[in-house]
Amino acid sequence: MINFSFEHKSSQAQVDTLFSKICAEKESQKSGYYNLPFDKAALDWAYQYISTHRELLEQISNLVIIGIGGSSLGLKAIDCLLNHLPCRKKLNLIFLEHTDPLHITQSLQHIKAENTLFIAISKSGTTIETSSLLKFVLHTYKLLQNAQNKAHLLIITDTNSPLEQWAKLEGLSYFNIPPNVGGRFSILSAVGVIPLAILGFDAHALLRGGGKMMEMFFCHKADHILHKALIYAAQAPNTPINVLFSYSSLFRHFNAWYVQLWGESLGKINAHAQKVGLTPIALIGSIDQHSFLQLIIQGKMDKSVTFLSLDPAHKEQPSIPALELAFLESTNFVNAKSFATLLDKQRIATMQTIRNEGILTDCIEVMNLCEESVGMLIVYFELLTSCMGILFEINAYDQPGVEYGKQRLKALLS
Amino acid sequence: MINFSFEHKSSQAQVDTLFSKICAEKESQKSGYYNLPFDKAALDWAYQYISTHRELLEQISNLVIIGIGGSSLGLKAIDCLLNHLPCRKKLNLIFLEHTDPLHITQSLQHIKAENTLFIAISKSGTTIETSSLLKFVLHTYKLLQNAQNKAHLLIITDTNSPLEQWAKLEGLSYFNIPPNVGGRFSILSAVGVIPLAILGFDAHALLRGGGKMMEMFFCHKADHILHKALIYAAQAPNTPINVLFSYSSLFRHFNAWYVQLWGESLGKINAHAQKVGLTPIALIGSIDQHSFLQLIIQGKMDKSVTFLSLDPAHKEQPSIPALELAFLESTNFVNAKSFATLLDKQRIATMQTIRNEGILTDCIEVMNLCEESVGMLIVYFELLTSCMGILFEINAYDQPGVEYGKQRLKALLS
Repeated sequence: MINFSFEHKSSQAQVDTLFSKICAEKESQKSGYYNLPFDKAALDWAYQYISTHRELLEQISNLVIIGIGGSSLGLKAIDCLLNHLPCRKKLNLIFLEHTDPLHITQSLQHIKAENTLFIAISKSGTTIETSSLLKFVLHTYKLLQNAQNKAHLLIITDTNSPLEQWAKLEGLSYFNIPPNVGGRFSILSAVGVIPLAILGFDAHALLRGGGKMMEMFFCHKADHILHKALIYAAQAPNTPINVLFSYSSLFRHFNAWYVQLWGESLGKINAHAQKVGLTPIALIGSIDQHSFLQLIIQGKMDKSVTFLSLDPAHKEQPSIPALELAFLESTNFVNAKSFATLLDKQRIATMQTIRNEGILTDCIEVMNLCEESVGMLIVYFELLTSCMGILFEINAYDQPGVEYGKQRLKALLS
Repeated sequence: MINFSFEHKSSQAQVDTLFSKICAEKESQKSGYYNLPFDKAALDWAYQYISTHRELLEQISNLVIIGIGGSSLGLKAIDCLLNHLPCRKKLNLIFLEHTDPLHITQSLQHIKAENTLFIAISKSGTTIETSSLLKFVLHTYKLLQNAQNKAHLLIITDTNSPLEQWAKLEGLSYFNIPPNVGGRFSILSAVGVIPLAILGFDAHALLRGGGKMMEMFFCHKADHILHKALIYAAQAPNTPINVLFSYSSLFRHFNAWYVQLWGESLGKINAHAQKVGLTPIALIGSIDQHSFLQLIIQGKMDKSVTFLSLDPAHKEQPSIPALELAFLESTNFVNAKSFATLLDKQRIATMQTIRNEGILTDCIEVMNLCEESVGMLIVYFELLTSCMGILFEINAYDQPGVEYGKQRLKALLS
């Protein structure tokens, strides 16, 4: 379903040590994300909500998600990857994320409350973007006016959070995120499962895929992840930048999810009070071959590159017409090929060029794009991130640096 | 119109040396981009084309640009920044850029030839993405069938390029790019001027803004650019990553234009056969405060940050309703503020936090967003890039690394 290849090897002793540490971390419940694929609570909530709100769900044409960072990136990534599936309902999925006035106005310009379900997602409810946008939506659409309007708002938040307490007071529907699951590791919790199920996706298969990857790793010791983490950590001083080069527009938002996961998890002060971290860069092929590739090939040798691709056999149309244009004969070698084949060969040619420069590369090939393979892909990157966190001796699950600005903001606005 | 601030200073001797070198480079015509704001040819072509094709331009509702990299990024950036202006015609601007089959199908799904003008932009015409997409469009819309159809295709290319020769043979309208202007420095040539004029923008004001920045630099020695380049070059070994943190969704495509300009110009093998380069990262505030900011604040100290913002006074609506929600009282401090004010204070709070960590920062504040200020902004980043190229002892205007993959691609598909 997905081919992972990582050719470089570390010593067996290092692999074993890292594996025992991540097993211990999982057992310690430092993060609850390891359990999510096996936790059926969110699925049960989703199917129960859907079955008891059939009438409402049939009358809506818009799903507006109010949330930022970990509360929006994963959902956006999965919908972008899978919204071509026939099961996907014809709902407009709209994200109300940040405080940019233009973004707010544009996002809501065609929205009416009666055909919209708003879902506010926040672990605490006090994230300033989410609370401000929630207030804006409450006010604009009079969502608290009566029970009928309240049915158009759903809350997903931590157990006992301020947002949950407010939702209870107002008599709103709400579902919980396990408190030990951080935002950027939360996509397989209610944060993703409930909206994805409402959109018509097979959320059960998503979790099954995540669970398979967890089992491949913990039960069958999928050691390519361990080797990759060990090589990345060893090379971090000279290779502080990791490029994810994804060869399909479908990966655009998956790229953004990866950037948050990698950047926010690993950019930390370690156990020895040193600032550490690896910088994520995410590109789309072929387009970024004409933007960023030159820097990878001839610039400072400070990057590794992971290629992420789809099987071109799944998209045989459109193809390049067999037109021979005078003076442009040098382009005829692609005539009558499918664009998907051309794109895939561009990926391979680029990979060969980069490898030829001695740059560390690896490949992830998604052979079958569906809920299950996307679940696997998500857990793959989460496990890799956790391994890096262990090797860097950091807490991969918090984000203390982001808190610093919040006090300053309060001071500036008071 | 734009406030630039760069507080750090290098020695006057270094500033003078760099200035004399860039003046010499300009005189040498190594790149023709220095002349573009003062070259009226593209403007004349644009206005002549518009006045002789009134009927056609009145009947079209789509403008489809076939081009990649330097042939699309600048145009997309400017339209994204300015498409709220009342002069912007209600044309759908669509970019047919890369070989991703999904992208092609989605981009063209509502396009009919009779209400569309296609513009193919390529310096040579042999870029495989552009030639393949051009063939696809020629075939799908029968654009070569007769003179009436041919009127729906316009070509922008180098003088005497294969694409120009083909356009001549077919009797198509075409306009030229100066051969000594590279793609990523070409936005103030016909590449940008002609489509922007067709879209209704004041292309003359765009060039005027670019010309003002050129004159501020070359005649009045706007030395903040020189100081910034010198500091960036001096700090390059420990600060190889430059972050552009833009506080508005309007900058989304400007960010992508900057990434290509900086990455592809500076990632090179220098005069001493060393691989050099600075890695560009472009973020949008506030959204990326919840994705990338943690890494900047607590990760490895290898980044500088430039903040780019709009004057919040220009966007007083929408604002945050003065709603006090039980349990969420800690969010009340933003009540009744405009979202634009909140966004701007978030920028300032973030900047203070980053500065407090000892990270190199500077600010660019666009006070009045219009064609003229956008022209200034473009030339500012181009001049900064040229200064870096001189300090790195590289050719900022070629991209030899990108060529390597082209032969491999040919071999793979033959």
